[in-house]
Amino acid sequence: MGSAKGFPLHLSPPQVLVLGFAGVILAGALLLMLPVSTASGRGTDFLTALFTATSAVCVTGLVVVDTGTYWSTFGQVVILLLIQVGGLGFMSMATFFFVIMGRRIGLKERLLIQESLNQLRVAGVVRLVRAVLIFTVLTEGTFALILALRFSLDYGWPKSLWLGLFHSVSAFNNAGFDLMGGFRSLTGYASDPVVNLSITTLIILGGLGFATVMEIYRYPRTRRLSLHTRLVLRVTGLLILGGSFLFGLLEWGHILKDLPLHGKILASYFQSVTPRTAGYNTVDIGQLYPPTQFLIIILMFIGASPGSTGGGIKTTTFGLMSVTIFSLSKGKEDVELFRRRIPPWQVYKALSVTLLSIGLVTLVTMILSITEGGNFLAALFETTSAFGTVGLTMGITPALTPVGRVAIILTMFAGRLGPLTLAYAFAQRRRKTMVRYPEEKIMVG
Amino acid sequence: MGSAKGFPLHLSPPQVLVLGFAGVILAGALLLMLPVSTASGRGTDFLTALFTATSAVCVTGLVVVDTGTYWSTFGQVVILLLIQVGGLGFMSMATFFFVIMGRRIGLKERLLIQESLNQLRVAGVVRLVRAVLIFTVLTEGTFALILALRFSLDYGWPKSLWLGLFHSVSAFNNAGFDLMGGFRSLTGYASDPVVNLSITTLIILGGLGFATVMEIYRYPRTRRLSLHTRLVLRVTGLLILGGSFLFGLLEWGHILKDLPLHGKILASYFQSVTPRTAGYNTVDIGQLYPPTQFLIIILMFIGASPGSTGGGIKTTTFGLMSVTIFSLSKGKEDVELFRRRIPPWQVYKALSVTLLSIGLVTLVTMILSITEGGNFLAALFETTSAFGTVGLTMGITPALTPVGRVAIILTMFAGRLGPLTLAYAFAQRRRKTMVRYPEEKIMVG
Ligand SMILES: [K+]
Ligand SMILES: [K+]
Repeated sequence: MGSAKGFPLHLSPPQVLVLGFAGVILAGALLLMLPVSTASGRGTDFLTALFTATSAVCVTGLVVVDTGTYWSTFGQVVILLLIQVGGLGFMSMATFFFVIMGRRIGLKERLLIQESLNQLRVAGVVRLVRAVLIFTVLTEGTFALILALRFSLDYGWPKSLWLGLFHSVSAFNNAGFDLMGGFRSLTGYASDPVVNLSITTLIILGGLGFATVMEIYRYPRTRRLSLHTRLVLRVTGLLILGGSFLFGLLEWGHILKDLPLHGKILASYFQSVTPRTAGYNTVDIGQLYPPTQFLIIILMFIGASPGSTGGGIKTTTFGLMSVTIFSLSKGKEDVELFRRRIPPWQVYKALSVTLLSIGLVTLVTMILSITEGGNFLAALFETTSAFGTVGLTMGITPALTPVGRVAIILTMFAGRLGPLTLAYAFAQRRRKTMVRYPEEKIMVG
Repeated sequence: MGSAKGFPLHLSPPQVLVLGFAGVILAGALLLMLPVSTASGRGTDFLTALFTATSAVCVTGLVVVDTGTYWSTFGQVVILLLIQVGGLGFMSMATFFFVIMGRRIGLKERLLIQESLNQLRVAGVVRLVRAVLIFTVLTEGTFALILALRFSLDYGWPKSLWLGLFHSVSAFNNAGFDLMGGFRSLTGYASDPVVNLSITTLIILGGLGFATVMEIYRYPRTRRLSLHTRLVLRVTGLLILGGSFLFGLLEWGHILKDLPLHGKILASYFQSVTPRTAGYNTVDIGQLYPPTQFLIIILMFIGASPGSTGGGIKTTTFGLMSVTIFSLSKGKEDVELFRRRIPPWQVYKALSVTLLSIGLVTLVTMILSITEGGNFLAALFETTSAFGTVGLTMGITPALTPVGRVAIILTMFAGRLGPLTLAYAFAQRRRKTMVRYPEEKIMVG
């Protein structure tokens, strides 16, 4: 690891990010261990607290204890703060405090923010953070009110406001935590248009990536969308449409059977949006057909867009690989997209992120299938969910063995930081090759 | 598809190969439908005959009826011929007949052979075919005798010779068909050194690729190994060693429990070699732990080396992708291996082969998990086995539904021709790009 100049202890930006995230998780775990954090007033063991804090900071949503009934309101507030810090990235939060405290933000802080938000350029990152924060507060606030109005039909007023705020923040940050009790997630609202459309809109806005949202916001004036944004929109649209269609096709006469027509359509749409990588569910995931569960695994693996609150290998990585195959099959030497050429090292990077991710999921699935016994598909599902920071489960999370819990904790952490930070570690240490070796071919495939 | 000049009906070499394979399969299926082909003297339905012929020509070894008891000796001879034609590639066979009939072999035939053997150069392909045939006959003959001697301890003499020949040809061609009866494969010989070492040596020799074997054979004189051969040897060695170690580790106290020490070691070694992509087994695959079955799925997916009788995405594809990740993580712009630079289009090709293969396996697994119900891991295993032309099964093949049978037939066909022919279709149609678009970056991962 090359050390950047001037950082404390000579840490590179990826290293600072890793330590920062770890620090926030540990602080959160300690808070959650306190008796005041639980509804029962008893303390919580370290592994359970660590699991919950990691799941919150990594905006995953996998839980070993039920969020709505196990934790006190204080504990839930801690979880919500961890989600917000984890979702925006702790550097954005730190910048926010720098700004309101009137401190000057130097180049090294800017480099860290760039890393934290996965941006291509250093210029304008502070302005970006300000815009991100305004956008976040406005969006979360608006939908918190809409959801609170809806929940007020079922609950009293202060409770409804808290439910609206919690689920709005959790959905926008693609965290997937819920307060409905009994590990039920949003299954009580499978046919409800307000909850379905509010939550999916929050998920999609949070998952597009801030830079993309900004570009779309400015589009009426600029009349220009970057290659990145066009790819994000194309892939996101195709995955949501294709996913909804396939889910409906597979489950129409099964899990969707008893829902009214609009409920069938809403539930198909919801279950197509949520694997990328929100983690709420309005139908019981464990009761789906295996092919549907497999479809969800694929969607979870692809995930959201870069520089967003979501995880997975990212839409652009998936899109770039599809484009590579397409360009190659047309006999082109360059990888081309929307009349632009993609540099080879970017294609290599997409490939590396994907293969490292496949390797990680394979390894952890193998560990879980040893330690947890039983259903292989459930192990693959749980691992992919943790890697993609999704939070959906076929139901095995609360019963995980200690080794399984630790494996999932590490996978959530690697999933939140890995593809992003590993990729940036690659990109930053890229240097001109001094010696260029002669080419030689290999027979492939 | 660009059509090459001068081929009959203006077919490109990949198209000729696809039609040729399909023709051989169809002819084989018709022969197997005859009453004379079965032990019972009754005819066989078309789908069963087609499944068996496809499995033989694609050197897969998945069977819906037991080879040793269902088919007559005539039927078994037909199967053995289909294996030999399919294993060497039908163009090598055609060349062989051209040669012995003294006919001149023109450029277009040479192009086809090059395609059929997945060679990088046209020059010397006819000499290569001659060497391949000699090498094949010598190897198969030698081990047929060794195995016949071993089988003579358990069977009478003409029977032992037939068993020796059949299993030698089937192992060298990585076909995995056996005559032991009751779908038992070689489980009766789990601790037998002669059978274990003969069969694994045949599998490895057949799976290295003819060009690689020739290079190693000439090495004492030339003192040079190509980049290709060095990569093949490195990856093959690592996979066999790593696979044996992991298999032993997982199954030592389970499926290997009742074997003597040397039997434990032999069985671990055998079960590490056979998924790549021979298809014999000496322990019951359906009884292994799920993590072990998953390990075998991974080995089956990687498969053998290019220009061999084996399938899968190939060792070089796997190796090239690992090297790409390694080069990238060292911050290099080029992909480098053994002090050689790999051209970007080769990396793209490896990537495309792998991703298309993952896509195919994913799709067929989804189909099987719909049509066959039940165990997801068994569906994934069966699909990967068919795609990699391996022939191992967790036991669901004989009970496949008609839709499942057709899906597996198409997967075996695509697996035998696909990665190879698709890849060559890519490579041949590669042309200089006329317009080079400006570069633009995308956020990845
Ligand atoms: K999530
Ligand atoms: K085979």
